[in-house]
Amino acid sequence: MSRKARTYLDWNATAPILPVAREAILAALDLVGNPSSVHGEGRAARTIIEAARRDVAALVQAEPANVVFTSGATEAANLVLTPDFRMGRTPLKMSLLYVSAIEHPAVREGGRFAKGDVSEIPVTSDGVLDVAALSRALEVHDRETGLPLVAVMLANNETGIVQPVRDVAELVHRHGGLLLVDAVQAAGRMKLSIAELGADFLILSAHKLGGPKGAGALVSRGEVLMPAPLIRGGGQEKGHRSGTENLPAIAGFGAAAKFACADIEMRSERLETLRARMEERMVELAPGMTIHGRAQERLANTCFFSLPGLKSETGQIAFDLEGVAISAGSACSSGKVGESHVLTAMGFDAGLGGLRVSLGTDTAEADIDHFLSAFERVVSRRRQGVAAA
Amino acid sequence: MSRKARTYLDWNATAPILPVAREAILAALDLVGNPSSVHGEGRAARTIIEAARRDVAALVQAEPANVVFTSGATEAANLVLTPDFRMGRTPLKMSLLYVSAIEHPAVREGGRFAKGDVSEIPVTSDGVLDVAALSRALEVHDRETGLPLVAVMLANNETGIVQPVRDVAELVHRHGGLLLVDAVQAAGRMKLSIAELGADFLILSAHKLGGPKGAGALVSRGEVLMPAPLIRGGGQEKGHRSGTENLPAIAGFGAAAKFACADIEMRSERLETLRARMEERMVELAPGMTIHGRAQERLANTCFFSLPGLKSETGQIAFDLEGVAISAGSACSSGKVGESHVLTAMGFDAGLGGLRVSLGTDTAEADIDHFLSAFERVVSRRRQGVAAA
Repeated sequence: MSRKARTYLDWNATAPILPVAREAILAALDLVGNPSSVHGEGRAARTIIEAARRDVAALVQAEPANVVFTSGATEAANLVLTPDFRMGRTPLKMSLLYVSAIEHPAVREGGRFAKGDVSEIPVTSDGVLDVAALSRALEVHDRETGLPLVAVMLANNETGIVQPVRDVAELVHRHGGLLLVDAVQAAGRMKLSIAELGADFLILSAHKLGGPKGAGALVSRGEVLMPAPLIRGGGQEKGHRSGTENLPAIAGFGAAAKFACADIEMRSERLETLRARMEERMVELAPGMTIHGRAQERLANTCFFSLPGLKSETGQIAFDLEGVAISAGSACSSGKVGESHVLTAMGFDAGLGGLRVSLGTDTAEADIDHFLSAFERVVSRRRQGVAAA
Repeated sequence: MSRKARTYLDWNATAPILPVAREAILAALDLVGNPSSVHGEGRAARTIIEAARRDVAALVQAEPANVVFTSGATEAANLVLTPDFRMGRTPLKMSLLYVSAIEHPAVREGGRFAKGDVSEIPVTSDGVLDVAALSRALEVHDRETGLPLVAVMLANNETGIVQPVRDVAELVHRHGGLLLVDAVQAAGRMKLSIAELGADFLILSAHKLGGPKGAGALVSRGEVLMPAPLIRGGGQEKGHRSGTENLPAIAGFGAAAKFACADIEMRSERLETLRARMEERMVELAPGMTIHGRAQERLANTCFFSLPGLKSETGQIAFDLEGVAISAGSACSSGKVGESHVLTAMGFDAGLGGLRVSLGTDTAEADIDHFLSAFERVVSRRRQGVAAA
């Protein structure tokens, strides 16, 4: 009976590279040529980028012309989170940024908005945006100073809970505002259409869907209304993002996007089944635990839970020693395991400590079994520890 | 007699990937893990990034702690070109940016400075910064409003001409200013020490020295004085640059930097010999031509020339059809072949048209022969065309 030594269940932090993406990266690495060069080598590089642009556009049913490639989702967020937009050549001012309290730090930090111009909209204890609170905020927004820019993620990175983006879009547009949707965790895990969502802008990351680190995109509804560039210089990406394009990463992003478009429901159902079995057994093993948002619409791959008295950091290390990689929510902030702002926003005691298990394409029954046996040992040691105390 | 169909002589636009960099990228691609995750997979990713940081630091004799990885040199330029610095926690204001007239567009665009706060310092007809003009500008700089930030590249991307950076550093520091040195083309082609240059900041690009596209760095003299972050979010790179690190590209950057540190003089001498033979023959074939900066200290790999009556675009296409990839100066601006701002700054008629041949590690005698036979045919057709007109 052989089993791989480690089980990786932290796909929301980063997904292993897909074989198709790896191949596309290798092919692009061996191409000599700057995509901006006019010689044959440059044109070959350009062709690969434009093919990837079509594949990434298809992932969210957008026009290829409306995809701006960036170095990742964080850069894309910083590009679009600015008071300075242009409608063609006419400047358009966004005076306030409204973000949900559970946005990723890349959005919550507010990009180029001054700290005082970022307003946080609460979520309910169910982990869902409080749409009524957003409505009240937009009701009193002073449009004389500029338009409202609203950022709501499609699926939360820690809980997997899907947010009511269509309702938000309707509300934001009724108030003449713009809506940014962080689709980083949702892309490749649920069917997406920028038009159906009603988003004005979407942000995407390659490495969360099996592409490489180093590529992301800002996707817009149209070509006319765009934020002021964040990175200026040679004028690549129609001037929206300067700097030599990351050809291999963009090629890998395209391949991963294409893969993600196919069989999305089938993959999602498989993960849902795996997770259902996992969560049922977890609750049997630890009846006092909480699975956050279990009753809500969630991404099929994510399970965010708390075990009474188990701190995130302790839990994460315990599972790591058992050979299972899971995380304490967001991977960011350079390895610091801080309190979860998502749990805090949901009104839970953040000191409670959340742990996130996130599955992906390669996750097999055996991985779930490995996790569950580790979970059983952690719970039992915990119980003995508590009993001994 | 077999020869490869194409000869690539556009190394200043982008260098073919080095085998050592390719290997490092592949190894990193197959690592699962977000460098910010605390589990074993995350720590393995972190180890690779910190090793690359040491290799990149060694390339410019800096401290590893002073290397901030970015998505490329353009981003690094936009990060450092800001009025808002901090000395520890104390804000420090740069009121004006002084750039040489031959800087790369990534620097000339001025980053986060308002257009009116960017001042251009001329170069002489030799293509060298007019240090006296910079001195006069700094003499009248009003320090009450803030300090001067000066950007001068170490070697120009079009002509290869080396700039008097040490003199500039002395001058800038006498006026209490900061000096940014764009070392993108110089790195890997001449020995570099941030301290010896007297630069406060250096910018580097991986793909110009045989690493992959998608990685660059801002290197600083110390840790205390730093620009306001451009990309905010998860707090990676000590908060100077948020976003999941581009692990494969950074690994490749490290490998390429390590390669570039070794045998730098030997490689440079070899290229110098190749170029000398090439330029001698070019002048024999077309006595009326100009090789820009031939009498100046230049990078050993670069030759920027004009042939009377031959436009850059026409010339570039003619060589492309002959199977030789060269360029009309900078590759940027999405394939547009504009007039060279470098030639204009040197006082040449930009309509004259410049063509750049740039060599690299793999360039062999046969490549030079291929270029020279193409050059001979282009010159001869040109002569016949002129005679027929």
